[in-house]
Amino acid sequence: MRPSGRNLSEMRAVSIETDVTKHAEGSCMIRVGDTHVLCTASLEPRVPPFLKGAGLGWVTAEYGMLPRSTSSRMRREATAGKQGGRTVEIQRLIGRSLRAGVDRVALGERQITVDCDVIQADGGTRCAAITGGWVALRLAVNKLIKAGDILSDPLVDPVAAVSCGIYAGQPVLDLDYPEDSEAGVDGNFIMTGSKQLIEVQMSAEGATYNRDQMNQLMDLAEKGVSELVSAQKAATNA
Amino acid sequence: MRPSGRNLSEMRAVSIETDVTKHAEGSCMIRVGDTHVLCTASLEPRVPPFLKGAGLGWVTAEYGMLPRSTSSRMRREATAGKQGGRTVEIQRLIGRSLRAGVDRVALGERQITVDCDVIQADGGTRCAAITGGWVALRLAVNKLIKAGDILSDPLVDPVAAVSCGIYAGQPVLDLDYPEDSEAGVDGNFIMTGSKQLIEVQMSAEGATYNRDQMNQLMDLAEKGVSELVSAQKAATNA
Amino acid sequence: MRPSGRNLSEMRAVSIETDVTKHAEGSCMIRVGDTHVLCTASLEPRVPPFLKGAGLGWVTAEYGMLPRSTSSRMRREATAGKQGGRTVEIQRLIGRSLRAGVDRVALGERQITVDCDVIQADGGTRCAAITGGWVALRLAVNKLIKAGDILSDPLVDPVAAVSCGIYAGQPVLDLDYPEDSEAGVDGNFIMTGSKQLIEVQMSAEGATYNRDQMNQLMDLAEKGVSELVSAQKAATNA
Amino acid sequence: MRPSGRNLSEMRAVSIETDVTKHAEGSCMIRVGDTHVLCTASLEPRVPPFLKGAGLGWVTAEYGMLPRSTSSRMRREATAGKQGGRTVEIQRLIGRSLRAGVDRVALGERQITVDCDVIQADGGTRCAAITGGWVALRLAVNKLIKAGDILSDPLVDPVAAVSCGIYAGQPVLDLDYPEDSEAGVDGNFIMTGSKQLIEVQMSAEGATYNRDQMNQLMDLAEKGVSELVSAQKAATNA
Amino acid sequence: MRPSGRNLSEMRAVSIETDVTKHAEGSCMIRVGDTHVLCTASLEPRVPPFLKGAGLGWVTAEYGMLPRSTSSRMRREATAGKQGGRTVEIQRLIGRSLRAGVDRVALGERQITVDCDVIQADGGTRCAAITGGWVALRLAVNKLIKAGDILSDPLVDPVAAVSCGIYAGQPVLDLDYPEDSEAGVDGNFIMTGSKQLIEVQMSAEGATYNRDQMNQLMDLAEKGVSELVSAQKAATNA
Amino acid sequence: MRPSGRNLSEMRAVSIETDVTKHAEGSCMIRVGDTHVLCTASLEPRVPPFLKGAGLGWVTAEYGMLPRSTSSRMRREATAGKQGGRTVEIQRLIGRSLRAGVDRVALGERQITVDCDVIQADGGTRCAAITGGWVALRLAVNKLIKAGDILSDPLVDPVAAVSCGIYAGQPVLDLDYPEDSEAGVDGNFIMTGSKQLIEVQMSAEGATYNRDQMNQLMDLAEKGVSELVSAQKAATNA
Repeated sequence: MRPSGRNLSEMRAVSIETDVTKHAEGSCMIRVGDTHVLCTASLEPRVPPFLKGAGLGWVTAEYGMLPRSTSSRMRREATAGKQGGRTVEIQRLIGRSLRAGVDRVALGERQITVDCDVIQADGGTRCAAITGGWVALRLAVNKLIKAGDILSDPLVDPVAAVSCGIYAGQPVLDLDYPEDSEAGVDGNFIMTGSKQLIEVQMSAEGATYNRDQMNQLMDLAEKGVSELVSAQKAATNA
Repeated sequence: MRPSGRNLSEMRAVSIETDVTKHAEGSCMIRVGDTHVLCTASLEPRVPPFLKGAGLGWVTAEYGMLPRSTSSRMRREATAGKQGGRTVEIQRLIGRSLRAGVDRVALGERQITVDCDVIQADGGTRCAAITGGWVALRLAVNKLIKAGDILSDPLVDPVAAVSCGIYAGQPVLDLDYPEDSEAGVDGNFIMTGSKQLIEVQMSAEGATYNRDQMNQLMDLAEKGVSELVSAQKAATNA
Repeated sequence: MRPSGRNLSEMRAVSIETDVTKHAEGSCMIRVGDTHVLCTASLEPRVPPFLKGAGLGWVTAEYGMLPRSTSSRMRREATAGKQGGRTVEIQRLIGRSLRAGVDRVALGERQITVDCDVIQADGGTRCAAITGGWVALRLAVNKLIKAGDILSDPLVDPVAAVSCGIYAGQPVLDLDYPEDSEAGVDGNFIMTGSKQLIEVQMSAEGATYNRDQMNQLMDLAEKGVSELVSAQKAATNA
Repeated sequence: MRPSGRNLSEMRAVSIETDVTKHAEGSCMIRVGDTHVLCTASLEPRVPPFLKGAGLGWVTAEYGMLPRSTSSRMRREATAGKQGGRTVEIQRLIGRSLRAGVDRVALGERQITVDCDVIQADGGTRCAAITGGWVALRLAVNKLIKAGDILSDPLVDPVAAVSCGIYAGQPVLDLDYPEDSEAGVDGNFIMTGSKQLIEVQMSAEGATYNRDQMNQLMDLAEKGVSELVSAQKAATNA
Repeated sequence: MRPSGRNLSEMRAVSIETDVTKHAEGSCMIRVGDTHVLCTASLEPRVPPFLKGAGLGWVTAEYGMLPRSTSSRMRREATAGKQGGRTVEIQRLIGRSLRAGVDRVALGERQITVDCDVIQADGGTRCAAITGGWVALRLAVNKLIKAGDILSDPLVDPVAAVSCGIYAGQPVLDLDYPEDSEAGVDGNFIMTGSKQLIEVQMSAEGATYNRDQMNQLMDLAEKGVSELVSAQKAATNA
Repeated sequence: MRPSGRNLSEMRAVSIETDVTKHAEGSCMIRVGDTHVLCTASLEPRVPPFLKGAGLGWVTAEYGMLPRSTSSRMRREATAGKQGGRTVEIQRLIGRSLRAGVDRVALGERQITVDCDVIQADGGTRCAAITGGWVALRLAVNKLIKAGDILSDPLVDPVAAVSCGIYAGQPVLDLDYPEDSEAGVDGNFIMTGSKQLIEVQMSAEGATYNRDQMNQLMDLAEKGVSELVSAQKAATNA
């Protein structure tokens, strides 16, 4: 029933390749099916002005799509003169989600910026960005720990994200683009490795859904996040 | 326990005053406690380019805050040269939520723009905007029906929104600003009058939550939306 | 002869409702006929960089129109990415006019920003903004005096503004929108309570006028400002 | 008493050099003392969208200052990313003033853009721009008449502008920069050759003025405009 | 003598991996040492307005750097609100260079946009972008030929680019970042496969050079371009 | 053969009028045929942040065209909201070229901004801007030397620029607009008075060129620069 032939609760193939760029303190290329996102974590020894002297670290994120990551070429946001509403919404979500898994006292007064750039898009780019972004963050923090710059690990539990939705009347896990563009209800679940919820966003466009369906989607999300967290752990040898 | 002395499941006082401006096709001032939002619905006989000739209507929304709607003065977005990320995110949510309750075939090729301008803010402005925005939309559509311009009612079920969150360890309904600024978990539920879900957004900042808590929050939301829908119906004589 | 049936020298009904928002140090809603402007005065304990250490206060103003304050919906300036030329011109006028009535030494090193937001427009919004803006400023300064923060009153004489013009060949006072859009000559007179002139702006579009007419318009303006100053005094119990 | 040693009612030396650039349909360099403005009139065979098919012409203006036209270097507006409020206000005034002297039916459906670029500034640039701008416009229209493209002259009466103000307690004509930066009251009078008023703008900054003073200023303005119109006529052989 | 230990006339290792993204009509990842640029060619069946109906094709280019492609993180241009001067200059160069190798009549009325996004930077990104951009263009044109959409090949001769400069007093080929940041004279040579020159840009910063040195640099450039053209041919099986 | 009737190696008439504005520390109007550029040098006693405390001076440049400097009116960049790509590229070139002739240690911690504004354009504006810009810079530095503010002359060798190109198959010197718009190959040579090269930019649009032609163009450039340097010396009495 799904265009890809997958079962309703079947994720696409996930791979996470680490240390893909030489400059970033942490980096990975995450591939969830044909969605490929390059994630880098950049460490700076300062925090934003509103946090100065507070003894707390900061994690923030930025998101972008290469112009031809999509089926037809998108206008480059730098030439349009601003980030679009969708971009801003996504990067705020990524930053908020990653921060939920960070002990900012343990991180200390430093900032890590996670850049998530979509190289190739086939649905679910923001979820891949969160999942891969956490890996980049993990690797950058590992360096700080190894160097003795921080003493207690600020990343106590992984953070991962997966999309779910109602496609052709059925709850499905990890929508690809053909599903995403048809689904009347879809959204994202961001969770920790121990299944705590960080963010739920479930939207309908020209449709509605009920609590039973919401519960089925959350069951699917838990399954998906389990698999993603395993991939994160494998990639980071954790 | 709540700063306002309310019970955990108690909404603030809600009032909806209709026809508050003489130019708009539909308008209301919604007051949810000290949060006051002016909502206007503006009708135009054309649709955006991407819908031309499709026989479908369009509903969109814009959101703004007056500079001194808040405790300390905010910079006016028109002087900053752009809408901030929060504004864009909110107005996309309002538009999406209202559209979920519209039969766009019945509306026909016309656009209604719902402007939600916060006159005074005390938490929950986006929820008040959706709830009041639907009233403005309802009144504008009533005029179209009365004039015979549309034959079947495109608004089959009201749309309303309420915030919930975990404050001081307890699930609470309809957070005001003192609660909102302290809550580690909070979000918005947008629902129809018949309790169908349109959008769930539940975020944690520096905290997480579990499925039991999620369910308690949804129970609270259903109660809140019921009361808001009653207020909408009273205001529009429906 | 006038669309509204008013005499040539007859103002529209004027009302000034004070303390309309809970956050601002001073606020009012001024209604001049169907023109409604919300004015707030926001106090900050600092002055702009060019005044630092000069021992002088600063009063500035910003102006905006809600998108549907007008007969057909205007584009929101925040989405257009900048304030239009007309907006900038008006807010510069408001600030300059209010400052002319302020003893900046007596005010001391603090800034008051007067925001004038048009809720409903029917001509003469900039004059209503100045007249109402002065009331908001008066109320904010009253608080400073009451708190003992300033010792001598920096507002020695009220500031008010009225439009005049030549409509259908006749000098008329306080143009409403139907008159304003037809008048070949119109402008604004800003004066103090003791009839001193602060600013005269009288423009022709596709027409000209002579000194006799200019004098008749100034006579009308003096009458109008008298009535506005009475309303200001009543509203502020001065 | 005046820094320049001029009498109270004495203009600076005025010269108008015509045809100073080879591309523009009309051009002049106007010099009013040390204020030098290059004015060009550019003819286009189309009108703005809001006038299409109305059988009316359009005249508009733009204003700029070269970065080092002033005593200390100003930031170039093109690098700042927008025209400042003062620029927008001035160019709107120039366009409005010139249009007041144009028979737009006689001009026919064509647009003339008058660019006024300040090469060297010493006070009164907007008045010089209007006076010189009219000369550029006159020359461009002369070409249209000569070519037989328009049959009746759309410029029936010259338009000129002069500043006046109260300096050291005395009404003075044609303020230069040292006067302008000290005067508590100053403004601009735009008039036709036959002494009809087009626009009066008289502002106070930290001061006020009375009707007697206003009348003295208008007397001065009439004298100044007479001299400017003579210079315009000499330059255009009219 | 060179930081990398290379001979004066030795290029870095060059590899060109083709068909690296599934959406673009042509794509490659070019690696010149540690400089990695992703190049995609996007085909559109329309030309820019200035070419409509002229029977000519158009090739244009855009360039970007990922924020952490560099040693320390750069600000994302989309958040800065515009492309910087360096970016604009580079993408104009890429477009101009590629067009020099295109028979625009043979291409017909279609546009190909070549996006060059730097994944990792170590000097010479614009040269890598041109060399890799030509490969992406070649692959996209191959598809058009194979599909029978164009009959004669518009790409008669490859286009490639290499940097040269004077480092520590010696002319060197293909500067990497440590050399580039120290060289007083450096620039880029864009040439065809048959050694015709397309563009020469040789700049000094705090230094100058003479014609002998210029000739030595051109000799080096010819050698470098030969090697790059071989790599282009190998990658495209030409 | 040339539209102007000039020989292949013949420059247009060059004149440099100095001290043309009263405010700038150095200024000139350079006229190369019908290309007229006003150049001013503005001295500031501070350097950009990246140079603070380094003991080095800075020279930078900005470039603009008046809207009607060209055959048909161009849009003013300040109203477009940004400098176009061509403008940015040109002003970067001017700044870089002038800096190549400056001993920044001798200049000391001060900045000179050279503004080059095109009053009338007929091809070769960037070369005229560099040549005239150097004169303005020379005059500003002369003042510093005369005032004893700097002890050793930071301008050891003049900087001048000339365009060359291949027009109708022939190498020609100093292209005017009719030639420039037809030439398939053209570019700019920036050199010192002692014939050292600072920058070579030679581009082809829809054509290519070989090394023999490149050498012929450089011969022409040397001749042109000699004549320009003579004009610079005459204008500055050097």
